[in-house]
Amino acid sequence: MPLDHTHDVQKCSWLDSAQDKNSDFPIQNLPFGIFRRRGSATAFRGGVAIGDQVIDLATLAAGSALHGHPELARQAAQACAQPVLNDFLAQGPPAWRALRHALFALLARGASPAQAAAVQAALVPQADVEHAVPTRIGDYTDFYTSYYHADNFGRIMRDVPPHEEVVSPNFHWIPLAYHGRASSIGVSGQRVRRPWGQSHAAGADAPRVEPCAWLDYEMELGFYVGPGNEPGDSVPLAQAENHLFGVCLLNDWSARDIQFWEMAPLGPFLSKSLATTISPWIVTMDALAPFRGEWRRESRFPQPLPYLDNAQNQATGSIDIQLETLLETPARRARAMGPVRIAGTSFRHQHWTAAQMLTHHTMNGCNLQPGDLFGSGTVSGPTAGEAAAITELSKAGREPLRIDCGNGQFEERSFLADGDAVILRAWCEQAGFARIGFGQCRGEVLPAHSAMPTS
Amino acid sequence: MPLDHTHDVQKCSWLDSAQDKNSDFPIQNLPFGIFRRRGSATAFRGGVAIGDQVIDLATLAAGSALHGHPELARQAAQACAQPVLNDFLAQGPPAWRALRHALFALLARGASPAQAAAVQAALVPQADVEHAVPTRIGDYTDFYTSYYHADNFGRIMRDVPPHEEVVSPNFHWIPLAYHGRASSIGVSGQRVRRPWGQSHAAGADAPRVEPCAWLDYEMELGFYVGPGNEPGDSVPLAQAENHLFGVCLLNDWSARDIQFWEMAPLGPFLSKSLATTISPWIVTMDALAPFRGEWRRESRFPQPLPYLDNAQNQATGSIDIQLETLLETPARRARAMGPVRIAGTSFRHQHWTAAQMLTHHTMNGCNLQPGDLFGSGTVSGPTAGEAAAITELSKAGREPLRIDCGNGQFEERSFLADGDAVILRAWCEQAGFARIGFGQCRGEVLPAHSAMPTS
Repeated sequence: MPLDHTHDVQKCSWLDSAQDKNSDFPIQNLPFGIFRRRGSATAFRGGVAIGDQVIDLATLAAGSALHGHPELARQAAQACAQPVLNDFLAQGPPAWRALRHALFALLARGASPAQAAAVQAALVPQADVEHAVPTRIGDYTDFYTSYYHADNFGRIMRDVPPHEEVVSPNFHWIPLAYHGRASSIGVSGQRVRRPWGQSHAAGADAPRVEPCAWLDYEMELGFYVGPGNEPGDSVPLAQAENHLFGVCLLNDWSARDIQFWEMAPLGPFLSKSLATTISPWIVTMDALAPFRGEWRRESRFPQPLPYLDNAQNQATGSIDIQLETLLETPARRARAMGPVRIAGTSFRHQHWTAAQMLTHHTMNGCNLQPGDLFGSGTVSGPTAGEAAAITELSKAGREPLRIDCGNGQFEERSFLADGDAVILRAWCEQAGFARIGFGQCRGEVLPAHSAMPTS
Repeated sequence: MPLDHTHDVQKCSWLDSAQDKNSDFPIQNLPFGIFRRRGSATAFRGGVAIGDQVIDLATLAAGSALHGHPELARQAAQACAQPVLNDFLAQGPPAWRALRHALFALLARGASPAQAAAVQAALVPQADVEHAVPTRIGDYTDFYTSYYHADNFGRIMRDVPPHEEVVSPNFHWIPLAYHGRASSIGVSGQRVRRPWGQSHAAGADAPRVEPCAWLDYEMELGFYVGPGNEPGDSVPLAQAENHLFGVCLLNDWSARDIQFWEMAPLGPFLSKSLATTISPWIVTMDALAPFRGEWRRESRFPQPLPYLDNAQNQATGSIDIQLETLLETPARRARAMGPVRIAGTSFRHQHWTAAQMLTHHTMNGCNLQPGDLFGSGTVSGPTAGEAAAITELSKAGREPLRIDCGNGQFEERSFLADGDAVILRAWCEQAGFARIGFGQCRGEVLPAHSAMPTS
């Protein structure tokens, strides 16, 4: 497939809102999600974002708009007419691209009046829709692939000289990961109850049971698996991207006080399973093609073993996705000040690529399935303002954030407070290419229940 | 529900094979599973084991056998007519018991000729069926709750004096767990490919990539979740057993060399995700009622925090389930010697009960869903012959097992060899009560692929 076709900057849509230079969703993007009209009793179904609209793929597949396009494109749209995208993701890159190219033709200025009218009949304003988790996530895996995040946390947890290494030796050899909780994954807008949990103060005789005091977010990307692999088989690195459908934003909510007490030796459990929030739109790997770069790790680190080495292949290298975290406190909300940016970085700093994560995940024969999700791990960049968790930004409370709440007043944040909303955003920009946006991933903290239930 | 009714030793079935004193499946058991006639193209459906037969619940629900029984019993049987038991498990204890009691009536000597004939028409010999994983497992959690297992492993991994504590301090306060891989769970008969993986020899500059050399099993029980809980809510200990449907055998295959290198700090990942094998039949909590005992932890250990303390409640206390591991090597198989018992113990030694595990799992508001599975953790007992993993039995190779392979010959096993089959069995026995058996959980080791795929 010629990728220049998908990113021709001369390409224009007859839909005005898709031509807005600031839109997340120009014709070159076309991310997939699951939606319905807000509050309606109709079934959720697949849709594609374009400008400020959603194309209802169930309506499109049922009509005549796709006549004259390849049969594969029609089959792909039909698979999207279901309440989850698993069947569509299982179809693989040829089907994904056939539908993508059919949508290019239908949405471009050169579309016939009949084609444009057919699409118009399938449009729903984004302002009028609600979303659901886009796939039935069979398994959710959360990786740990930012050296800077690992380094920041190592230094927060123990007081060591700057030159002393705090990152686990296996970090440079293995895309480390743990299995996460699929049931508590929710879509943007999720309201997250502050958890109760056990924590243990240094020197105390026994742990305490109380509401989490160190509630945190983690800014990550989420990757959706397309076609899976059979049990016992592995996916070599050269094939890994054929198993990756696309990317979303992901907030890996984390209860740090619970985590520090529970995680040895089996890893994080209740500190993470309270909730994970994802953005509704899946940006396809194809839409990200212009933003790929050579993947190269700093020479001070060990280089990957052969089965994970793709340094020579720019097409499967790093992706320059810009990410940022915004915080909306109740005080700012009360004064209609909106969220404030607290940090941001690029995914290109990550120690491992998504393809390396996927290949490692299958090296033991573990079977991935269509619609599986994996998190990139916290995306913290090399400098202080690029940290992707509030515990890193505040140095676990030693340097609280000062948040402007208007009228010359400031409030402090070391961890998240009740009522705080965390908003993640991401986008790709490069001269000569249309901006590819991810929309947003928003989650809000509800206060803890007043007591643990006892009967 | 009067429990004596379900365990009346005078209760007899008109089905002769259910009267066999050595049968795993007397009328007092009635475990649920998913099956079809071996090799048939018909859909999998729910069934109940009785003697050497399976009652096809789809056939039973479609006929007139359940007329005259409570509507709840018929609804329960209908829910079981599907290829997975999730809807049945969601119905909860009243529906489970209504069907259980209807089956008692239909299978008892006192059943009318018409009732017996209707059941006869729904019977399929166990010898003629194949099984599937009985639920769509949304999330699989593996606990770590045997003090003796934790102690054995601590001593294998580091050389410490006998009086020195090697178990992590949080072990006594938290039913520790990690999320496991749902996709690679298979039913008894699973053939497990020896995985490739990274391992790291002490002092080496870099890890190696090679087939696992330290392949192991772990003998565990699996618990199925019935009705779930809403996100943000918790299940108090007094209610926990209303959310537990039943119990199976579970083999948590483990690649120790991979595990020791990958598991810090996030816990086991590829060392466990290669495969997990479960037995086909789910023994209900109701069938286990006569084998409950007071749960009491040795006084040398810290006692549970209040939210996990059920020491006073025998009905939710420990369960005296006997377990054993058998090994069938290729040499024994070639001589038709069958498997040999290598270890066994009772679940009553475990540091935490299933109810405590479930309550802890939800204390942070994590939502469980019907059909979720959790593993008990390795069930190793207090003495050397009660260890539930070959690494413990062989002390990581320092004391290999000697396996009789006939003609006065012996072979050694420190870890599992290609072609080895691991068989888990479990049962409950007590004077005055019928024997409740679990069937078996069998898995066989296939050799590793000859090379890692590279393109």
